[in-house]
Amino acid sequence: MLAELALPVAIETRSGAMTMRRAQSTDLDALMRLLADDEVSRTRGDVLAPEDRPRYAAALEAIAADPSNDLLVVVDAGGELVGTLQLTRIPGMARRGSVRLLVEAVRVSSALRSSGIGGAMMRWVTDVAAPGLEASLVQLTSDAVRTDAHRFYERLGFTPSHLGFKFPVPAREGSQMASGSPA
Amino acid sequence: MLAELALPVAIETRSGAMTMRRAQSTDLDALMRLLADDEVSRTRGDVLAPEDRPRYAAALEAIAADPSNDLLVVVDAGGELVGTLQLTRIPGMARRGSVRLLVEAVRVSSALRSSGIGGAMMRWVTDVAAPGLEASLVQLTSDAVRTDAHRFYERLGFTPSHLGFKFPVPAREGSQMASGSPA
Repeated sequence: MLAELALPVAIETRSGAMTMRRAQSTDLDALMRLLADDEVSRTRGDVLAPEDRPRYAAALEAIAADPSNDLLVVVDAGGELVGTLQLTRIPGMARRGSVRLLVEAVRVSSALRSSGIGGAMMRWVTDVAAPGLEASLVQLTSDAVRTDAHRFYERLGFTPSHLGFKFPVPAREGSQMASGSPA
Repeated sequence: MLAELALPVAIETRSGAMTMRRAQSTDLDALMRLLADDEVSRTRGDVLAPEDRPRYAAALEAIAADPSNDLLVVVDAGGELVGTLQLTRIPGMARRGSVRLLVEAVRVSSALRSSGIGGAMMRWVTDVAAPGLEASLVQLTSDAVRTDAHRFYERLGFTPSHLGFKFPVPAREGSQMASGSPA
């Protein structure tokens, strides 16, 4: 977790007052449902398969244990998990030694899209979390097919100045470190 | 540093045999020169200004101290620093709990472009570093104006499936954490 972030915080949405807090291990099933509640994610394997539960549980634990990562969730007044995003703080040399804040896996329940939940989460990221973490740049990538999301990020002040490239690493048996050629 | 990575490694380029190793504090000035040896970087403030040296030194130290980040450099047979890139390992819930490997700030000396240095670095990232770190996805963003770089990444097997959004955080005085509204 990013210990510098003061959480939970109250957020106002068009579907009422909600709370943004850190994800807990008890959020695992709700997080799996939220990931599967998205057409693009489903094409990438997030299909709520019971046999994948240990993988997601390990990921949730790894994020919580990492001092440069935090997984946030939004819960409504009834305690239902309706949104999530992940933050990663990255030190770097470029841009005069800028710290970057990477945003990944922004998801809002399909039943509550256009309720202002995503906007409230992202404004907190740009206006509170980034300055609090001394980040001078917030960055994210969005699948080219998510044209609604692109307009959303541009309204929030993000500039689509880059192309985002992905390389799927082929599955292999065991470690490949032995294949490097030590100098 | 990413302790799992076996470094240094020998790399073959069209300008001869070179070595890829972790950046050291003594590489600071050469790294600043390499960042300033790039037109796009200069527009973002990497202009080799002496007053920026403490910022870069702090960034180099932060990367070295971070167990999820590594800054790599390529040095030629004469010991000159001719290339660099940064790696960040990121745990995540999406894509069935995939670990991602983010590549940032890929730079090659302008005098040695098209020597195969960038290709050798990136193939090591995709073929050795990513499996060694159990990452199932390698990702990076490239400025939309870098059309040569886009062809380079596509030849290496990267897919330009995403848009990369950036949000520059306005400079502020002091911490803004107090502006959050605790729930």
